Amino acid sequence: MEKPEMEQIMKKAEVLIEALPYIQKFNRKIIVVKYGGSAMSNEELQKNVIKDVTLLKLVGFKPIIVHGGGKAISKWVAKAGKEPVFVNGLRVTDAETMEIAEMVLGRVNKNLVAMVQELGVPAAGISGKDGGLLQVEKKYSDGKDIGFVGDVTKVNPKILYDLIDRDYLPIVAPVGMDENCETYNINADDAACAIARAVGADKLVFLTDVEGLYKDFSDKSSFISRITASDAEALVSSGEIGGGMLPKLNNCTAAVKGGVNRVHILDGRIPHCLLLEIFTDHGIGTAIVGDDE
Amino acid sequence: MEKPEMEQIMKKAEVLIEALPYIQKFNRKIIVVKYGGSAMSNEELQKNVIKDVTLLKLVGFKPIIVHGGGKAISKWVAKAGKEPVFVNGLRVTDAETMEIAEMVLGRVNKNLVAMVQELGVPAAGISGKDGGLLQVEKKYSDGKDIGFVGDVTKVNPKILYDLIDRDYLPIVAPVGMDENCETYNINADDAACAIARAVGADKLVFLTDVEGLYKDFSDKSSFISRITASDAEALVSSGEIGGGMLPKLNNCTAAVKGGVNRVHILDGRIPHCLLLEIFTDHGIGTAIVGDDE
Amino acid sequence: MEKPEMEQIMKKAEVLIEALPYIQKFNRKIIVVKYGGSAMSNEELQKNVIKDVTLLKLVGFKPIIVHGGGKAISKWVAKAGKEPVFVNGLRVTDAETMEIAEMVLGRVNKNLVAMVQELGVPAAGISGKDGGLLQVEKKYSDGKDIGFVGDVTKVNPKILYDLIDRDYLPIVAPVGMDENCETYNINADDAACAIARAVGADKLVFLTDVEGLYKDFSDKSSFISRITASDAEALVSSGEIGGGMLPKLNNCTAAVKGGVNRVHILDGRIPHCLLLEIFTDHGIGTAIVGDDE
Amino acid sequence: MEKPEMEQIMKKAEVLIEALPYIQKFNRKIIVVKYGGSAMSNEELQKNVIKDVTLLKLVGFKPIIVHGGGKAISKWVAKAGKEPVFVNGLRVTDAETMEIAEMVLGRVNKNLVAMVQELGVPAAGISGKDGGLLQVEKKYSDGKDIGFVGDVTKVNPKILYDLIDRDYLPIVAPVGMDENCETYNINADDAACAIARAVGADKLVFLTDVEGLYKDFSDKSSFISRITASDAEALVSSGEIGGGMLPKLNNCTAAVKGGVNRVHILDGRIPHCLLLEIFTDHGIGTAIVGDDE
Amino acid sequence: MEKPEMEQIMKKAEVLIEALPYIQKFNRKIIVVKYGGSAMSNEELQKNVIKDVTLLKLVGFKPIIVHGGGKAISKWVAKAGKEPVFVNGLRVTDAETMEIAEMVLGRVNKNLVAMVQELGVPAAGISGKDGGLLQVEKKYSDGKDIGFVGDVTKVNPKILYDLIDRDYLPIVAPVGMDENCETYNINADDAACAIARAVGADKLVFLTDVEGLYKDFSDKSSFISRITASDAEALVSSGEIGGGMLPKLNNCTAAVKGGVNRVHILDGRIPHCLLLEIFTDHGIGTAIVGDDE
Amino acid sequence: MEKPEMEQIMKKAEVLIEALPYIQKFNRKIIVVKYGGSAMSNEELQKNVIKDVTLLKLVGFKPIIVHGGGKAISKWVAKAGKEPVFVNGLRVTDAETMEIAEMVLGRVNKNLVAMVQELGVPAAGISGKDGGLLQVEKKYSDGKDIGFVGDVTKVNPKILYDLIDRDYLPIVAPVGMDENCETYNINADDAACAIARAVGADKLVFLTDVEGLYKDFSDKSSFISRITASDAEALVSSGEIGGGMLPKLNNCTAAVKGGVNRVHILDGRIPHCLLLEIFTDHGIGTAIVGDDE
Repeated sequence: MEKPEMEQIMKKAEVLIEALPYIQKFNRKIIVVKYGGSAMSNEELQKNVIKDVTLLKLVGFKPIIVHGGGKAISKWVAKAGKEPVFVNGLRVTDAETMEIAEMVLGRVNKNLVAMVQELGVPAAGISGKDGGLLQVEKKYSDGKDIGFVGDVTKVNPKILYDLIDRDYLPIVAPVGMDENCETYNINADDAACAIARAVGADKLVFLTDVEGLYKDFSDKSSFISRITASDAEALVSSGEIGGGMLPKLNNCTAAVKGGVNRVHILDGRIPHCLLLEIFTDHGIGTAIVGDDE
Repeated sequence: MEKPEMEQIMKKAEVLIEALPYIQKFNRKIIVVKYGGSAMSNEELQKNVIKDVTLLKLVGFKPIIVHGGGKAISKWVAKAGKEPVFVNGLRVTDAETMEIAEMVLGRVNKNLVAMVQELGVPAAGISGKDGGLLQVEKKYSDGKDIGFVGDVTKVNPKILYDLIDRDYLPIVAPVGMDENCETYNINADDAACAIARAVGADKLVFLTDVEGLYKDFSDKSSFISRITASDAEALVSSGEIGGGMLPKLNNCTAAVKGGVNRVHILDGRIPHCLLLEIFTDHGIGTAIVGDDE
Repeated sequence: MEKPEMEQIMKKAEVLIEALPYIQKFNRKIIVVKYGGSAMSNEELQKNVIKDVTLLKLVGFKPIIVHGGGKAISKWVAKAGKEPVFVNGLRVTDAETMEIAEMVLGRVNKNLVAMVQELGVPAAGISGKDGGLLQVEKKYSDGKDIGFVGDVTKVNPKILYDLIDRDYLPIVAPVGMDENCETYNINADDAACAIARAVGADKLVFLTDVEGLYKDFSDKSSFISRITASDAEALVSSGEIGGGMLPKLNNCTAAVKGGVNRVHILDGRIPHCLLLEIFTDHGIGTAIVGDDE
Repeated sequence: MEKPEMEQIMKKAEVLIEALPYIQKFNRKIIVVKYGGSAMSNEELQKNVIKDVTLLKLVGFKPIIVHGGGKAISKWVAKAGKEPVFVNGLRVTDAETMEIAEMVLGRVNKNLVAMVQELGVPAAGISGKDGGLLQVEKKYSDGKDIGFVGDVTKVNPKILYDLIDRDYLPIVAPVGMDENCETYNINADDAACAIARAVGADKLVFLTDVEGLYKDFSDKSSFISRITASDAEALVSSGEIGGGMLPKLNNCTAAVKGGVNRVHILDGRIPHCLLLEIFTDHGIGTAIVGDDE
Repeated sequence: MEKPEMEQIMKKAEVLIEALPYIQKFNRKIIVVKYGGSAMSNEELQKNVIKDVTLLKLVGFKPIIVHGGGKAISKWVAKAGKEPVFVNGLRVTDAETMEIAEMVLGRVNKNLVAMVQELGVPAAGISGKDGGLLQVEKKYSDGKDIGFVGDVTKVNPKILYDLIDRDYLPIVAPVGMDENCETYNINADDAACAIARAVGADKLVFLTDVEGLYKDFSDKSSFISRITASDAEALVSSGEIGGGMLPKLNNCTAAVKGGVNRVHILDGRIPHCLLLEIFTDHGIGTAIVGDDE
Repeated sequence: MEKPEMEQIMKKAEVLIEALPYIQKFNRKIIVVKYGGSAMSNEELQKNVIKDVTLLKLVGFKPIIVHGGGKAISKWVAKAGKEPVFVNGLRVTDAETMEIAEMVLGRVNKNLVAMVQELGVPAAGISGKDGGLLQVEKKYSDGKDIGFVGDVTKVNPKILYDLIDRDYLPIVAPVGMDENCETYNINADDAACAIARAVGADKLVFLTDVEGLYKDFSDKSSFISRITASDAEALVSSGEIGGGMLPKLNNCTAAVKGGVNRVHILDGRIPHCLLLEIFTDHGIGTAIVGDDE
């Protein structure tokens, strides 16, 4: 073998060896990956995410994917000729919208299943209705009825353990039922957070469309790569963090307070951001950690 | 207690006791129920079917439901503003139709899951893609391309056993993948027959919109309540049976030849036809049995 | 099928469906059935009781039968030419009587085993000596020696769990041993109550020769269909309940206080009273329930 | 310690060490012990037999006891005032005699259970009816009806394995059922032989009232300490062996031909004959071995 | 059989029967045997010890052997031409001595394995490094560095349970690692004591070169055959016990205080002292028992 | 993050993803690694080998290490002042040499255990004596006695399965016993080959001091990167391959003929050669494959 070639493959070996302590550290640990946004729309990124999660499973982790519906729900609502109704600026989920959402999420779910299966790893796609996984109650927005949108009130994780025990990668669509077995849509971040807490996940990872958390979004130098849950709560209380990040950040702190070891906000637009975060020394994105870490 | 009341409840006890030998006979046996047609459209009938199957599970059977999409697929194809295309009189399943079919079947699937869960019994809804359950190859109609319609070529029943072992009632949507993990629609009767053979089901039951098999459809007196698989094949060869029953009858004989003990064609419009067939001495519908029975 | 016939079998299905929530509710729950008295003497009733308990087992319950010896012990004592001796009006169980009792109970036990086996369900007949199930100490009646009659002091339920785990219906003869492995007769009600408490049974059912509990036995309208354990204790303390029911009622309240969910006093002379109580909405007999129910 | 005392306890250690290879050889092997005759009547001998079998269990063997009823059946038949009826010199087992036999065997069974339990080892006493262990058909003596006496036609050993797995010493009374679940008495030697064959026992031991097999009973020097099954069959055919030993010898050869490694005819009147046979180099009694041993 | 011969083998049976209650009492109990000193040098004694421990295993105990290196370490240190260095009269274990000690202990270990295997019983020889069994920290002698000699700080008994579960007799060489996975020698008595405590052994037995404990070593009549842990501590505090017995006695009391039921100091020069102590009524050596025994 | 840095870590992700299909392919497959020669002498290389094997275990493979003694045996033989004796140019293993070899191999074994444990992975070091793993018979060199050198005649792999099941990485020293439990040295290549065959390994890897196999050792261009077992045999027969490679090549073909999927001869001097061979597309060294591959 020529020397330059040899040097190159030597580097490969080093990368694999660099991963060793991480593989060992998270061996048999549960990692919940919330998958949505841009990482979902772009086919190339989608393949990368699925490859990453599948690799995690193969090297001994126990990943669970919780996915959203991306833009497909809106697309099908429009196709069905529905006029959107808004309350407090929030789209109202009436019965027909709920029907469409469930259909679309079901298809996204099986799409992800197919991609994992294609890599030779058994996957099982479920929704929060299967095995009574996610129980919800109707959510109100400032007291206004916004339709079939639910807050998770109880998680029955048995079906996840059953699937993991039998070696499946569980993929969960964020749909649940209330006590009367009525169907509700659930915000995918909320669903991921509730599941991560219920199964005592070691990690909860949000794949997002942003690089992570900024103290001041307009100031790139204010990027936060690591913050404790309590500091994050203080940040929320101070009103410094706003907009779309607020509910996500609330989920992050709730997860850490609820026993999840670490939560990561990663930029899903970076290929293999998941692997890089977990298997290398380069922390990318923002990590929300326990107060005593 | 008044005497007439007492007599009445006495009769109830006798019905339960009459069921005893049947419960015992099919204890821990797998029963595949193909569920579609009218039994699916009528809400009352739907509840009855689900109650029946749930009861079967509770008293020790191991039922598997395979369902179709009923009229909902056509409804959504129309909503999406698609013009149907036909080849040899068969609707062509193009990519968009496939997408709609998978969405609709996914929702029907979770609907059934919800109904079983509501009765307090754990259910898990999957499609033929989960765990690689149903592998297919493209089907042609007289050599013509009819799109994403598949013939089952291989069944990997592991996920069904895994779910049954962990006490779930599996509910299967008839969607599969080919070797390249491309998605295909499968005729629900075909899917049910393939699954029944693969798991060595004791019974395969088709809930249909007819009373059963007639030698001569116009002659009510020619009703066949019991026929061997070989006689059924002869009937098919003779050309006496035609129309919609032919593919179903072919599935029936294939199932029996493939090791299923008995196949039943039941009239899904009769409430609780499933219970009546299994738990009472009144055979209803048509039974296709082994040649040596 | 003719219409009247159809209507009739429809009713059958409804009875089965009516049983569904009960089957579900008691699924895998332990039910101890004390079986004695008239229900034991009449061959037809005996067959009914055994069918009922076997059905309970087949649909997912875990029944345990505790039986008495009925009139057979007295018959054989007479055959052996023994003169009965009484203390405080109680028959003294001398060594020979004990020998006869154990022989008779052993045969009754195997008779019941045979009846269950005949229905195709595996049964295992044991006495309280097997596996050290029932440990007793000598019982005195007002300080008088009444021979080999024992009070249960300790239950070692391992053998019951072992048999249930391996799918047998356990049938127990009320004979036990003291610390020196001396054999003693045990009142069957006492044995059933002690076993029900030790295994944390969900239900304890006494099949008796009376309709249930009356506040005033001479006044049919004072029938008690439901009473809390504390109220039952108060009734006992008040002296209003007397005679043969007193020890049974004491066992009932002891069982409820000891963790058994519900105790039923049923009229064993009513065919299938067990099924009717458990599978229908018609409460028959008297139920002794927890104070907070 | 004084020297003579030391020497004495040294000898004890040597005896234990001498047992080592035998313990190892039969570790986890099944030994069926047919226990009856004199060894049963004498209380001291009875205790010794039970101690021996219990020791076998404790050191890793898996013993099964099959017992007879000794003289107690005749005693109780007489007590019941029955006149014995004979056909071909054989006592006829009419319904009442069968009832008495089952009662007596049941009590003997529980007596043995108590003795094993007293030594701190869990025992479970069953009859051939429990779990359908012994299925029989009516036996005729030269075509004459001799009542409820059965020949074993089928052994269902599941209950024995279940009990052994859960660490009980099974003790079996030789009573069985025919296809209609009618009760029959079985010769205890026959039952032991059938059970030994069905469970693939390593050893079958008959505790008898004789020293073993003599070629010529009147000539003490003709004692046979070891004989192959084929030679034993030849001996039977030759007519040299007669009387009471003939059926036992037939059982011995049947057992060896049926896969039992060795059958022993031991003199139950010698205290601890079982231990001596198994744990020391002194073969006592007669061993029937395979032809190729 | 001649009468004297018969009497002799009768005595054998009695010895076996005498062992019955002891076998029963220690059934499935863990016994840690520290094996070293003279019992190790003499080939005959060595065979006896191994036979004894193997017998214990065969009759249902769960023995663990912890061995020392005997005189072989010194022999090989000399062979290697090393000059011994002493600190406070203690031999210093420098790197080369540690290397030799580990080599020698490894060979002694496999020697014992071979002897057990030769008796047909599966053995597995490990050191305290395997599975991280023994973690140590450097030990100092009055603040002086004595090299690679370690004090046990943590026991991870998983590998012992794993081996016992799979039916091996574990044999442990007293070598451990500190937190940096550096290798250290451990006093075999210390290792045995630490292991006995960690696995909750029922018994810890030291096979030594003395008869047991004397209050006054020069006065044979002051032999102590039984002493409570607290009295033993008092004896140590009083300074009456000295010399080589002191560290051993400290281990004995530490073991009893740490939950071991009984510790025995036996004279390994008496053949089969282990069997005699456990299986007969003759207590030999000194037993250190709990204060409340 | 700066762009060049980003690009660099992107490449890392790609390397990990490149490993995915290999991880999947060998998931739960057994890989036997023969470890000896230079890879053993150099501390850095040693660490690399151990890291590689540990990584294999962590990502789901089931590796078994079989090691030699390297140069340490000769060193200690010399230290002990022994004069080497040769027969046919082979060193004779007399009793003392055998003793030294076993000591040295034992220490090398525990050294490797320590290195794996240091990486946080449980290891268990055994020799072929433990659990009777390797049974041998005396080997002769052209009929000449060369002492305690053994040929493997039987492998009892139970202990390997037991250790793997309980999650240990087994590390095996090539020492075995003959039928009389006499200890013998075994060539490490022979031991690795025998073990790989007995456990049905998927791969057997020899870490050597050469780059692989050359048709003509003096002609670098004749390097063989892939050869079928039959072609390798032909090469051996032709006499073209000679010297040190011959016995190794014989082991390679024997392994493939005996069911091992692939055998690799790798250059142990290349850091991480094991990872490179398994996880990248660059085949390094020589692969011996089945004839039909």
